[in-house]
This record gives sequence, C-alpha cells and structure tokens, in this order.
Amino acid sequence: MTFLDLVRQRRSVRRYAATPVPRERLERALEAARLAPSACNSQPWSFLVVDEPESKRRLAEQAFGGVYAMNRFAADAPVLVVVITERSRYAAMLGGMFRGTRFNLIDVGIACEHFVLQAAEEGLGTCWLGWFDEKAVKRVLGLPGRTKVDILISVGFPAEEAPKAKARRPLDDVRRYR
Amino acid sequence: MTFLDLVRQRRSVRRYAATPVPRERLERALEAARLAPSACNSQPWSFLVVDEPESKRRLAEQAFGGVYAMNRFAADAPVLVVVITERSRYAAMLGGMFRGTRFNLIDVGIACEHFVLQAAEEGLGTCWLGWFDEKAVKRVLGLPGRTKVDILISVGFPAEEAPKAKARRPLDDVRRYR
Repeated sequence: MTFLDLVRQRRSVRRYAATPVPRERLERALEAARLAPSACNSQPWSFLVVDEPESKRRLAEQAFGGVYAMNRFAADAPVLVVVITERSRYAAMLGGMFRGTRFNLIDVGIACEHFVLQAAEEGLGTCWLGWFDEKAVKRVLGLPGRTKVDILISVGFPAEEAPKAKARRPLDDVRRYR
Repeated sequence: MTFLDLVRQRRSVRRYAATPVPRERLERALEAARLAPSACNSQPWSFLVVDEPESKRRLAEQAFGGVYAMNRFAADAPVLVVVITERSRYAAMLGGMFRGTRFNLIDVGIACEHFVLQAAEEGLGTCWLGWFDEKAVKRVLGLPGRTKVDILISVGFPAEEAPKAKARRPLDDVRRYR
C-alpha cells in the first residue's frame, strides 16, 4: 500500500466491534508514534493505553459525561489511548514562546497521526478525540493536576464498512505557487 | 514500503542537491497534506510553494537573517513551502478555547507530516522549520499582517547519504498500559 493509499483509506471510525485489539498491533502503532519527528527532537508525548475492560469503562464514563456526551460512542471502543502532552525541550519552548507557536502541540499532532496511520495499516479503526472532560480523565487515572491531556484516541476493529470519506477543500484552494 | 519503513526512512535533510524538484512530486505531497484529518474537518491550512529561484532566494534571505541564521542551510533547498495556519471552524475553535487546546496547531502538524512523508516516498528530503523571521516572510510575500505562519518546510533532493536517525526515547518510556 502506498502512503497516499493509506491516507485515503484512513477514516474516523465511530462504530467498533467488541473484538479485543491484540497488543502486537497496538505496539506497532505506538512504535510509529514513538519515531515521530518533533521540534528539537523533544518528543513531548507519552501514551497511556487503557485496554483493560473495567478500567476502560470507568475512564469512558468519566471522559464523556455531561457536555461531552457527543463522544460517548468512544465508550464502545475496546481501547482508549490517553495522549499526554509533555513540555518541549528548553530550546523549543523558548523558541516557541518567542515565535508565538506551541511546538509541542504540533508535535503531538505528528505523533498521533503516525499512531492512527499505523493502526489503519493494521486494520484498526481510530478516532481522534479532542472533546472530553480532561479533569475527570486525570482524576480517574490518578494523573497529577498539571498533566496536559489534549487528545484521546479510540481504537478498535471497525464494526461496519468504512464510512464515506469526508470532503476536503480542492487542491487549488489550498496551494499556490510562487 | 510499509508505513513503518517510511517513518524509519524519513530524515530531516539539511543538505540539498541543486536539482529542481518536479512539480508532480510536490503535487503528490500536497495532495497527501490536503487529505489530512483535522478537528471538525476544519482543514486550517494553506501552502504557498516557493520554487521560482529568484522568489525563493529573496524569501530565504528574509526568513533566515539575524538570530535565525542557524536555519540558513534551507536557502540551498530548491523549494520552500510556507505553511499558513488558518483558523479552525467555529465549533473547533470554541471547543479548543474551552479545552485550552489550539486544535489548528495539531491539525497543521498532521497535514505537514503527511507532506513530508509523501515527499520521502517521492525520494525528496525535507526539513521542518519553526525558527524563522515570520514578519519578514510575510512582508516579502505580501501576506496580510494577521496571517499566521508557524512552519516552513524546505524541500529538495538530498545531496548526500541520509544522516543517521536521531535517537528516540525507548518505547517503555513513552507508553504504559492500564
């Protein structure tokens, strides 16, 4: 499969089979994430992979309550990955402050995309989740209050045919030459 | 090539051959970027591809002056891609404010990584650049002052063997299971 084919095949999957996800597949997705590039090689990420059913149930219950209920579908995924955004190295953080860019957010975007693309290559469905109760997530997992969790990723085998690809802006709209 | 092989093969390339980069290859890298997922499908990016030699020279001169001289190597790349970070859709922006996360930065990370990975598949070398004189870049390109340019990407055929891969944190250090 070429990279473009992989990119075209990946979807946000919101309906999951109950089948457990073999850890070997998760490990390869995590390996792809681990190898991601980052500003000053900071690697400002770590992954808490919640695949024990009772832990996952408790986490989902806390993450997707109240105003966050629109993402409750993720409770049916056999795995939830809690992505911890760490601080960039000093040089990247200082440069980022000077430039007005939080490079660690860009870096987390790169690493998580490596994760979901490798997961797609493994036949797994994933969904990026940015809308969840972060405080409750940290409480139920016993993470320190200063921890930053920008992203969760739900993971599982898709329960149905891939949904239709979402429309994207045409190429002529997003690139110009000079 | 598997996705993991592609990830392992990609490097930050800082020495470029003078050979021009065929636009077909750039177009496929841009296509991969265009198809990237984003919060609420906002697609908050656009790409200004500077490959006309005189325009590129003027841009590099402005971008990497003074305190930004450490990235002057990028002036030798035949192509500089100026990545414009746009605003997320209203829902993603509002959600991001509420959650304390700038989703458009994560999204730019995803799209640019698609670009560099497809470029690697095309035999091109790239380097992410976050340290450059943004004001001067906008001035020389005639971009409005409110435009946000978080990232430049240098592109060209590598002038030498790929540098050694940078060390990454071991997997046991970046993932735990629960």
